[in-house]
Amino acid sequence: MSGKRLQALREELQRQGVDAFLVPRADEYQNESVPAADERLPWLTGFTGSAGMAAVGSREAALFVDGRYTLQAQQQLGDQPIGLMSLDNTAMVQWVCSQLSAGQLLGYDPRLHTEPGLALMKRRLAERDILLQPLEQNPIDAIWSDRPASPCGPARPHPITFTGEHSREKRKRIAMSLTEQRADALWLPNPESCAWLFNIRGEDIPHLPVVLANAVLYRDGSATLYLGKNAVGEALVEHLDQEVTLVANKAELFDAIKRRHVNKIWVDPLISNCWTLQQLRALDIELLLDGDPVTGTKACKNPVELAGSQAAHERDGAALCEFLAEIPDRVGAGGFDELAAVKLLRSMREAREGFQGNSFETISGYASNGAIVHYRVSPESSLPMELGGIYLCDSGGQYPDGTTDVTRTIALGEFPPSAKENFTRVLKGHIAIATLRFPQGTCGEQIDAIARRALWDVGLDYAHGTGHGVGSFLSVHEGPQRIGKAVTGVALSPGMIVSNEPGFYLTGQYGIRIENLVFVKKSESYPGFLEFEELTLAPIDRNLIDVDLLSERERDWLNAYHQRVKEVIKPLVNEKTANWLQAATEPL
Amino acid sequence: MSGKRLQALREELQRQGVDAFLVPRADEYQNESVPAADERLPWLTGFTGSAGMAAVGSREAALFVDGRYTLQAQQQLGDQPIGLMSLDNTAMVQWVCSQLSAGQLLGYDPRLHTEPGLALMKRRLAERDILLQPLEQNPIDAIWSDRPASPCGPARPHPITFTGEHSREKRKRIAMSLTEQRADALWLPNPESCAWLFNIRGEDIPHLPVVLANAVLYRDGSATLYLGKNAVGEALVEHLDQEVTLVANKAELFDAIKRRHVNKIWVDPLISNCWTLQQLRALDIELLLDGDPVTGTKACKNPVELAGSQAAHERDGAALCEFLAEIPDRVGAGGFDELAAVKLLRSMREAREGFQGNSFETISGYASNGAIVHYRVSPESSLPMELGGIYLCDSGGQYPDGTTDVTRTIALGEFPPSAKENFTRVLKGHIAIATLRFPQGTCGEQIDAIARRALWDVGLDYAHGTGHGVGSFLSVHEGPQRIGKAVTGVALSPGMIVSNEPGFYLTGQYGIRIENLVFVKKSESYPGFLEFEELTLAPIDRNLIDVDLLSERERDWLNAYHQRVKEVIKPLVNEKTANWLQAATEPL
Repeated sequence: MSGKRLQALREELQRQGVDAFLVPRADEYQNESVPAADERLPWLTGFTGSAGMAAVGSREAALFVDGRYTLQAQQQLGDQPIGLMSLDNTAMVQWVCSQLSAGQLLGYDPRLHTEPGLALMKRRLAERDILLQPLEQNPIDAIWSDRPASPCGPARPHPITFTGEHSREKRKRIAMSLTEQRADALWLPNPESCAWLFNIRGEDIPHLPVVLANAVLYRDGSATLYLGKNAVGEALVEHLDQEVTLVANKAELFDAIKRRHVNKIWVDPLISNCWTLQQLRALDIELLLDGDPVTGTKACKNPVELAGSQAAHERDGAALCEFLAEIPDRVGAGGFDELAAVKLLRSMREAREGFQGNSFETISGYASNGAIVHYRVSPESSLPMELGGIYLCDSGGQYPDGTTDVTRTIALGEFPPSAKENFTRVLKGHIAIATLRFPQGTCGEQIDAIARRALWDVGLDYAHGTGHGVGSFLSVHEGPQRIGKAVTGVALSPGMIVSNEPGFYLTGQYGIRIENLVFVKKSESYPGFLEFEELTLAPIDRNLIDVDLLSERERDWLNAYHQRVKEVIKPLVNEKTANWLQAATEPL
Repeated sequence: MSGKRLQALREELQRQGVDAFLVPRADEYQNESVPAADERLPWLTGFTGSAGMAAVGSREAALFVDGRYTLQAQQQLGDQPIGLMSLDNTAMVQWVCSQLSAGQLLGYDPRLHTEPGLALMKRRLAERDILLQPLEQNPIDAIWSDRPASPCGPARPHPITFTGEHSREKRKRIAMSLTEQRADALWLPNPESCAWLFNIRGEDIPHLPVVLANAVLYRDGSATLYLGKNAVGEALVEHLDQEVTLVANKAELFDAIKRRHVNKIWVDPLISNCWTLQQLRALDIELLLDGDPVTGTKACKNPVELAGSQAAHERDGAALCEFLAEIPDRVGAGGFDELAAVKLLRSMREAREGFQGNSFETISGYASNGAIVHYRVSPESSLPMELGGIYLCDSGGQYPDGTTDVTRTIALGEFPPSAKENFTRVLKGHIAIATLRFPQGTCGEQIDAIARRALWDVGLDYAHGTGHGVGSFLSVHEGPQRIGKAVTGVALSPGMIVSNEPGFYLTGQYGIRIENLVFVKKSESYPGFLEFEELTLAPIDRNLIDVDLLSERERDWLNAYHQRVKEVIKPLVNEKTANWLQAATEPL
């Protein structure tokens, strides 16, 4: 990074006739991970966090990040002339008002923002007579000479053996909600929704097996699908039935809407960018602004998807057990650090059938690094792993039959004395969710406290949610369900996959998290009630458990879980791991 | 009830030029209990439930009630020509549309409705060109010849020994939120808010020690107070400081607002009636429509109020224990029924210092009647209480130092075998809340499931909330806090009094509920954490507890609670009760 880029950007802003410009960490699909071509924020500022926004005026520039990224941003900004501020609307409006005066223009790229995301700022700036100006071309793209090309990997069919439902059937189901809402068409702004609806996958986004796509679904179940410049092979054309029209240019989507005489189109403003809404408004048709109906449908996995997830979790559990079995030797031999652990674990997964890559960047945190909730290891931060500490490893894989996400916390030799009680309290919370039975209609926010109670008892807590939804060979963070303090209003429903991951973090010393994926199913014994079933299969470190703190019911759960882990995983692993597994799953 | 009243009402509607009319169960203060003068719905239909609405057209009439009142409404309507429907907007709109055609008018009394309450219906009817017409005089009042007079009992000062804070100080505190919101005045539509803010009490409403009042508070802490025709003695005039201007006519409130040059007034549309908003709008000043700031402030009791509540609960607990100690003999003697129990309990409370009346109508339910959650005993329903069943008694008293609300469920001799396990599971939920420690900022909806879990474990639940707020010598149901499934967004905060009342109901057999009042306080050992402290003092029936189902911690809690009940109550009761108490509080 250097003042040169800022300077070049300012000249470009002048050329485009705006007085300041917003640089969000976003792509036009509102993806959680963005392709390299959309890493404009790191290109300009050096900041690589997963959320943030820069604002550049003619005199000053500022970077806005949330609390978890303050330290990282400070380091990455270095001595650049860029102020660091809190990522909230009030701070951003204040900064803009300190830079611009009445009548001046704040430019933005309408492809990188949503209307609700800008609404508050727009209103507040309007009071000062400062206007938001959408720009046709992103000024950074104009000056970023070695900008990577947008991804356009191949789009592959995702076969019925993994999806369990043909695209045509899915489209018919979603089209029924269009009929209910009296909408003629549905705008699909989201590559994940398109991947699910058309049963296609790709690798355009890091960790997320999708291609960049947009689509329009019509009330009769037919659709227009834009796959960008992605290579579309014969297999895919054959896979997509005749009711799906492929287009290679986004503008053709709007042409198709016109040609199909759509009077009313359903579009979710929270995940559609401003540019799309502007294009749709220009068609002079009615917009039904409401939540995307695909999200809730996709969340409830069918029996084929659940069986796939179970199979993927068996292979993934075997890889993880081989990794865990290997650690004592590696640590004993010395020269083993957090980065080496990430590579070792990846190599174990790569040896397993169907492994497509990690489902997110592995969190590999030894001792004090484990206490940083959003820690990502780098060559600079990587601590050597030695006897006498706690190691936290949160990782997952993408397999055609399922997506995994698991956290294990293990003791390396002696450990800080407080860790045993705290680990056991986290485990009590984990078991409380694992064994919970709850009535239909219960939302994640209603049961979150059940995971926290054993920590609350001694005045402790953790500053993250208890669980998030997970896709089927899709995003490892998938809505709409979650288990947390925030209100979702979304009932945990049969087929939903959700993580169960209470934790505890002692700054400067260690981090603890125990994470399994579970899925929701109907109770066989109690009509109207739901239960969780475990997907993740890996031992929970017995060395860190204070058995006296567990109730009989909790001990029974752990022993039964370990018994199942042993039965399923032992036949899948090498002898060394099998021996380790035998000891690691001994009943307590 | 008879067709005559309906007929007279229809003639009056014709005179007033409307085609149909809404009769809600409401008074102009949106009180939970309404004075006899406002019992228009029972006068017209015979239905006495606490919620409901009738609609009368020129040909047909309908009564709308919610699920808990369907049976009762059927019985009370008898063979009158009034249809029975579900109390929801869709059903009401449908009915109105079936009776009225475009251009016709649906009349309503603007004093008995809120704008948000009517908004949806108004919008839907407007689509059919049916308009809502506010009426100057309520048509029922015009034909109800022997309508009771509106209550106007004396308004009494509530002394500082009970309130702990002078009205002037309270007004200054609330006035600070006016400054923050840049409002010049606050409209106080609620008799409870007025009672709290001006430290006055009365007895205009059943079970609720308030006078009917409205007020306006100004930004400097001064106020205009309307006490209706209520007798205002010298003591009260002296009690109210010079900054409070008393007016005897509601219109003078609006005159005062004009005279004080109020430019912006804060008014809560959820608790202010349509008529008030119409009057305020006619003043041509800005309305700030937002939640009443008194509610949240009043909810957090000061140390004097909490000490008062504790004292009231000691006397109330002594009365309840005398009642519980007496029951075995009365049941043994025969001829004792649910109604006799209500009278006996009241006589025990009346013997205690300061008792002002019940805080709500006692729920006295033997066997199958106990399973009716909103049961109110009548001479027709009252069951004889005999050996061989479960008895549920939910009652409370009003004392100058506090309001009580307690439920005990007791075994009379042998009982249905399932009752012991179910009672113990309800108790486990009760103890789970009683012993909960939770971080500041936690809302009631986040902890509700903790009370239900032991029942959920075996596929059971209860169809009511776990807890409600309680006032200080005010309403036994006080917001904004509650513990339940519904989202409040209100953090449980130090000083709040809340009930803890999980239950279980087996239709046709028995009802179980264990209710204590607790208050929220800061944890002494764990900064940032809050805990509950018990207010209610009465034994929980040991005969109904399956000790094997309790954890050691749960048993410890019960034994410690019983020990405290014995220590505090024994010195306050007669010898018979003291002996009973000794046995009832024996450690488990």
